[in-house]
Amino acid sequence: MIETRLTRAFGLQYPVASAPMAGASGGALAAAVSRAGGLGLIGGGYCDADWIEAEFAAAGNDAVGCGLITWRLAEQPEVLDVVLGHAPRAVFLSFGDPAPFAGAIADAGTSLICQVQTLADAKKAVAAGAAVIVAQGSEAGGHGARRATMTLVPEVADYLRSDAPQVLLLAAGGIVDGRGLAAALMLGADGVLMGTRFWAAEEALVAGGLVEAALAADGDATLRTKTVDVARALVWPEQFDIRVMRNGFTDRWGADLDGLAKDAAARQAWADAMVRGDASVGTPIVGEGIGLVRKKMPAAQILDEISGEAEALLAGGWRQGS
Amino acid sequence: MIETRLTRAFGLQYPVASAPMAGASGGALAAAVSRAGGLGLIGGGYCDADWIEAEFAAAGNDAVGCGLITWRLAEQPEVLDVVLGHAPRAVFLSFGDPAPFAGAIADAGTSLICQVQTLADAKKAVAAGAAVIVAQGSEAGGHGARRATMTLVPEVADYLRSDAPQVLLLAAGGIVDGRGLAAALMLGADGVLMGTRFWAAEEALVAGGLVEAALAADGDATLRTKTVDVARALVWPEQFDIRVMRNGFTDRWGADLDGLAKDAAARQAWADAMVRGDASVGTPIVGEGIGLVRKKMPAAQILDEISGEAEALLAGGWRQGS
Repeated sequence: MIETRLTRAFGLQYPVASAPMAGASGGALAAAVSRAGGLGLIGGGYCDADWIEAEFAAAGNDAVGCGLITWRLAEQPEVLDVVLGHAPRAVFLSFGDPAPFAGAIADAGTSLICQVQTLADAKKAVAAGAAVIVAQGSEAGGHGARRATMTLVPEVADYLRSDAPQVLLLAAGGIVDGRGLAAALMLGADGVLMGTRFWAAEEALVAGGLVEAALAADGDATLRTKTVDVARALVWPEQFDIRVMRNGFTDRWGADLDGLAKDAAARQAWADAMVRGDASVGTPIVGEGIGLVRKKMPAAQILDEISGEAEALLAGGWRQGS
Repeated sequence: MIETRLTRAFGLQYPVASAPMAGASGGALAAAVSRAGGLGLIGGGYCDADWIEAEFAAAGNDAVGCGLITWRLAEQPEVLDVVLGHAPRAVFLSFGDPAPFAGAIADAGTSLICQVQTLADAKKAVAAGAAVIVAQGSEAGGHGARRATMTLVPEVADYLRSDAPQVLLLAAGGIVDGRGLAAALMLGADGVLMGTRFWAAEEALVAGGLVEAALAADGDATLRTKTVDVARALVWPEQFDIRVMRNGFTDRWGADLDGLAKDAAARQAWADAMVRGDASVGTPIVGEGIGLVRKKMPAAQILDEISGEAEALLAGGWRQGS
């Protein structure tokens, strides 16, 4: 068992949260993570209230949190009440200003977890009253920005130590196994948030063909792009793009976003491929860490394996290879 | 003392090499690092034979290695003989195909260290006969590419373990303190290569004003750009750009490289500012880790401090903060 401030604060067996990946992290995944002793988070993402209701129902009696994309929540603020109505274990906000929502979350007695991509945004999240900061590096799958986990985590750790020592810190981006967990603890994190590894969990809501293609890929195979958001007509703030697997679709449209925006057929083909699980057009939404993920597993087994690897390393096992 | 395969292979006190930063890593810095028990590398960079000769002379009797930019060496292959004539402790090649030079380096009885930015290039470097692979993440200062340290290091470690277990692995990119060193060891590295931290060493050849500006910056303040290479009329391969501190110069020209190429006055102003140490126009060549570097120190003190921090963490000190 690895005990940290995170495991004590949330009563966990593992200092690990599952990323609230929009659409992919449904109630089944979040519940499996929480039941096994991690912190499971539903990926409420773009604030579809019906989907969120259904996934909280799928989580059953297991205590899970829920993540929302902050700039989208600002357009549909009533969705926060939907989430808070389920007495979530935490509300996780990323990609936008959390301040307008912090009061309601605190009033509900719920912990606010803020994911940030820069030191500047970490300071804003602390000012807004975050209980937990997730420092997300650019190597992460899905949306993100430019800073890397290796530097952002210790820099935020230093800031928190001096200015907000009660705030916990999770590392995110590129962490998929016990090596990553152990490294994150060395960098000053209280735990980790993992997306890509749980994207390939048996409980995740991802088309099988996309998972198969991703498991066969190495970590060189991803890139950050705007194509996927243009394909969905999502207007993301300029500073955020999305890491996915590179393929013919991203090659074709990466330098012609305007052309893609006007090509309804190409956009529909991408959407269809995502549902069908065709990775020649559809883009598995994974991070660089996919090169370290070799098979689909149940979430509970992922947690157990990662924790065991990290414990062995922390006990001196790193010397064995070196 | 942290003992690893690297310290044993090179007879070091610390599992740390100083990056061969072109122009900044002169003989004084490389010698100070080697003398203190690290692996010091002269930054031979663009293959100026006279500069390389002078810096080997400045290193005196201390055993140092030398780094060269591989694509430039391919244009001036005779410079390799200049370097090998000094019986360097290692030849370090980065940014290009090392294969054409591996034979001469082996014939000279010198170790070949290859820095790579992708798993694919790690495989090529092993095939060429590298004794040490440096897996460099995008958070590094200076030239680099897209992959991050947090994922590239364990992925290359897995590859080496299965296909070339005799080859050593160093992590580079975003590593500036004992936390980074300890994290790199958890990820499977045998040691680290540090640039930014030694860029701010007392022995480095960097204008004082640039160092002052960088020490005051946080890690959000850097970006990857092509402006600096256009300013110098250097034609780098497309996949590599350079991480520097963002300023008015990179803001002005980042989206107008053609304009910069045609503006001799702007290019000269940048060059003058680099010499003068004016960071409003000149661009300190540092990585994201600059946010963790707070003062200029002698190289020996840097090594001692980092090693002490890492030893404490590896002995269980990570639990104190968490």
